[in-house]
Amino acid sequence: MPEPLLARWRARSDAALERALPAADTAPQRLHAAMRHAVLLGGKRMRPLLVHASGALFDVEPAALDAPATAIELVHAYSLVHDDLPAMDDDALRRGQPTVHVAFDEATAILAGDALQSLAFAVLAEAPVVADIQVELLRTLAGAAGAGGMCGGQALDLDATGNGHGMTVADLERLHALKTGALIRAAVRMGALCGGADDGALAALDRYADALGLAFQVRDDILDIEGDSATLGKTAGKDAAQDKATFPALLGMAASRRRLDELVEVMADALAPFGDRADGLRALGRLAVERDR
Amino acid sequence: MPEPLLARWRARSDAALERALPAADTAPQRLHAAMRHAVLLGGKRMRPLLVHASGALFDVEPAALDAPATAIELVHAYSLVHDDLPAMDDDALRRGQPTVHVAFDEATAILAGDALQSLAFAVLAEAPVVADIQVELLRTLAGAAGAGGMCGGQALDLDATGNGHGMTVADLERLHALKTGALIRAAVRMGALCGGADDGALAALDRYADALGLAFQVRDDILDIEGDSATLGKTAGKDAAQDKATFPALLGMAASRRRLDELVEVMADALAPFGDRADGLRALGRLAVERDR
Repeated sequence: MPEPLLARWRARSDAALERALPAADTAPQRLHAAMRHAVLLGGKRMRPLLVHASGALFDVEPAALDAPATAIELVHAYSLVHDDLPAMDDDALRRGQPTVHVAFDEATAILAGDALQSLAFAVLAEAPVVADIQVELLRTLAGAAGAGGMCGGQALDLDATGNGHGMTVADLERLHALKTGALIRAAVRMGALCGGADDGALAALDRYADALGLAFQVRDDILDIEGDSATLGKTAGKDAAQDKATFPALLGMAASRRRLDELVEVMADALAPFGDRADGLRALGRLAVERDR
Repeated sequence: MPEPLLARWRARSDAALERALPAADTAPQRLHAAMRHAVLLGGKRMRPLLVHASGALFDVEPAALDAPATAIELVHAYSLVHDDLPAMDDDALRRGQPTVHVAFDEATAILAGDALQSLAFAVLAEAPVVADIQVELLRTLAGAAGAGGMCGGQALDLDATGNGHGMTVADLERLHALKTGALIRAAVRMGALCGGADDGALAALDRYADALGLAFQVRDDILDIEGDSATLGKTAGKDAAQDKATFPALLGMAASRRRLDELVEVMADALAPFGDRADGLRALGRLAVERDR
């Protein structure tokens, strides 16, 4: 039963994030407060948990994983701050709390996001690992965050909004592989890189991560239809209102559920060679597929 | 006469930026086109030139300086894209051309800036230098870009806009030391780090860079009053219209010019121990102080 382990990693990740963020009582206070608001109000911490669960495959000390776990969550958090802006998704609520531009203002939200991205790389540049691995971690995160990863997926999403019916399932999978998949893959890779994983192990973990990222998104699309706003902590039914392409819209609900089942199989196969040590990654796969928010 | 040298470094920097940016004809095209617009429409390339001029002090091969030179200009370019946004300075013109959110749209401008920042770190993570130096370069850039550097200075600037008369000269110098000074210092440091500079050399170069950054800003404030929009390629007289604190507003024009002269002295003193090899840095100091746009 890895749930106590997940809870321990989550507490560890929260503490590391708290330490990495600038204090709210030092200048410039408003920027620092906005950065803290963006990161510390909650969230599932899926990406830091993936770093720890992946590092656990190779018996990496949790202390050595704090930097990549923190860095990837900072990138994720910055992306949410910018996605929520009026010029992007225009969301007023996130995790049941006012979004950064609502709690502060738009200019501060833009800057806080920018500073969180810089902080992610600053944290990685202080990681207590050998320099070769450190460079590899920095390369992995920078590649996953940029135009060839998360930002590129976000751009594809912008192009598709209001034009959802022009997309195929392949287009939609490609969009999500970049928008959310790239960081999830990077999280799993960074944990493994800290453990000196070989190419074979990295390839298997990529397969797990890609299936997990897609499963996470299919589940998200299903929840947007079946969930209620109070449980989700954000507005339900938004995808259909915005005419966004989703898996249920393109495939139907039954086929979307079957796709989830397939992805669960892919994850199980990819993790099989790692034995019990992969129980953390298995538990995170279940969470992604079974969550109700 | 180092001017031919500066021209060669500038051409080299432009070529390296061109190579680093994603192609405009690969997906997502609109994002890539916006990133290229932000970077390739011109600019003085002051920061890449500083990297090359600083590396030249230590006989570093120009090819080894391409990565830091490119990375620092990408960070500078992203910051301009975000600064120009309606929620920030709301500028429609930059270098005589439409700003990114005008030429494209706000969402694309936010994403292009974000992706340019990621690209800066991705480029550094591929630099052909030993891993220890590479980590030091990444640490230097991340620190200079974030809440303790450029973004922090931008936040102080936001706080001060419309409230300029509440600032002292010391406040204003602190604001600029972060907003523009941090990247200028990082540019000079990165060139020197590639050459294995010792702490004494780095300290002297910090003094040069801090004086240069401040001189650049004092000159900017003077130009905003004395320049015309056609030569500047941006709107003149904007600082006064926005009630921004400037050196001429706080000190008067004559004292601002004297401050410039003092900073020229500081630069000369700091560079004296380096002899002729510092002629590139000297030429850049003159450019900052004597430029008319």
